[in-house]
Amino acid sequence: MTVTTRHRVKFFDTDVMGVAHHANYIRWFETGRVEFLRAVGIDLNELMSDGILFPIIEIDARFHAPARFDDDLEIATTATALTRAKMQFRYEIRRVGEEKILTEGTSTNVFTHDGKICRLPEKYSARLSKGLT
Amino acid sequence: MTVTTRHRVKFFDTDVMGVAHHANYIRWFETGRVEFLRAVGIDLNELMSDGILFPIIEIDARFHAPARFDDDLEIATTATALTRAKMQFRYEIRRVGEEKILTEGTSTNVFTHDGKICRLPEKYSARLSKGLT
Amino acid sequence: MTVTTRHRVKFFDTDVMGVAHHANYIRWFETGRVEFLRAVGIDLNELMSDGILFPIIEIDARFHAPARFDDDLEIATTATALTRAKMQFRYEIRRVGEEKILTEGTSTNVFTHDGKICRLPEKYSARLSKGLT
Amino acid sequence: MTVTTRHRVKFFDTDVMGVAHHANYIRWFETGRVEFLRAVGIDLNELMSDGILFPIIEIDARFHAPARFDDDLEIATTATALTRAKMQFRYEIRRVGEEKILTEGTSTNVFTHDGKICRLPEKYSARLSKGLT
Repeated sequence: MTVTTRHRVKFFDTDVMGVAHHANYIRWFETGRVEFLRAVGIDLNELMSDGILFPIIEIDARFHAPARFDDDLEIATTATALTRAKMQFRYEIRRVGEEKILTEGTSTNVFTHDGKICRLPEKYSARLSKGLT
Repeated sequence: MTVTTRHRVKFFDTDVMGVAHHANYIRWFETGRVEFLRAVGIDLNELMSDGILFPIIEIDARFHAPARFDDDLEIATTATALTRAKMQFRYEIRRVGEEKILTEGTSTNVFTHDGKICRLPEKYSARLSKGLT
Repeated sequence: MTVTTRHRVKFFDTDVMGVAHHANYIRWFETGRVEFLRAVGIDLNELMSDGILFPIIEIDARFHAPARFDDDLEIATTATALTRAKMQFRYEIRRVGEEKILTEGTSTNVFTHDGKICRLPEKYSARLSKGLT
Repeated sequence: MTVTTRHRVKFFDTDVMGVAHHANYIRWFETGRVEFLRAVGIDLNELMSDGILFPIIEIDARFHAPARFDDDLEIATTATALTRAKMQFRYEIRRVGEEKILTEGTSTNVFTHDGKICRLPEKYSARLSKGLT
């Protein structure tokens, strides 16, 4: 299952080198992740109201070509692991309608309750597992 | 009382037009405000642990000249009102060692407790009043 | 003429006080402004390739109620002045489907060429004037 | 050679989960990298005025523990490769005075001229090589 979402590059996303600043792609990975989770029925506000947080413990990214102001980007998000202990996602960012990957990367997050690592409650993990199909 | 603090302009502060993006000055006003409050003995983590928040209700800014990557900026913060109901600050941002104001502006914030407007507890307002001298 | 565009509040838009950080609304005003200009046929990349920049010289904002993570916001942008010397816009930000204004504000920008104030070339001002109808 | 620089965590660095947003560490790696290069005599404005850019092609980060509002952070930057073709840095971020690493990571960048990969001119590479001692 791949979930795609869009982001139009803003002036405030760019830097003096004329391209989108590389740290922003990490933010756009998050945008992709939130939409992926929404697509499988996981509402992160619901998780937070249950006292569950989902800190990122690892990210990486490879930047192949720059995005520029006003580029219409597509963030394609797939899951490589979705368990009650962690979630791993893979992201590919392209201009809409183009084959070439501009930036790709991965993230891993765990779940915490009261600041301690926890396992995701059953009611969420059932929905989450749909994301691996 | 004027409190000055510094900010070196980062790549991620700039945009494709080659200058610091205007929304960042609003963030730097906050940096000035936090340091002003620290100087009078107000620790915002202490306020938050007492359940008090301090939402901004109004800001304005006038941008006279741009800051660029790696500029060493000085944020001068003065208070124009510091009561148990609100705080008003005025900011001037210059390059270190220069007279010319690059950006100036003001902010107003109130205090809230459980999402409702409140008056600042006595223990804070006594410290705060030092800021108007 | 009012142009509306959408922004879903991201984790990276929020702060420890649980709401969207106030400086982000200034960024969202820009999102509204860019979409307004697109709607009247002004492509800011075209302006930049003609050597014309459009620095903001003044902004203000009034924050009436907070936006939170995942809120679906609507940015309504109208023009109050569109001349060859400056553009002034007014913004209202609401949750989609709600009457209440969360944040409202204005911006003024001028045009520059080689770092000097200039008048907008005819080919752009003709398009721009449509925005006041 | 290790160059350390400081960053005080701002409200606008935090998110609704009460900690510094993970994408900001990628920005702070940049702050460390710029200060490292300044320490060996490389002024990035000088590089840019020579038409040389230095795009990031790869980053990774591991997040061990969160930073919070107003934490005083120390970014320790070391170089693992500094050639005329690329720069690789390693970063460790801690609270000032603490042993525990909050976040660590690496970055790789190349050099470009007119959008094409290039080798760094001699005048810079001589300075740069000091950074590996």
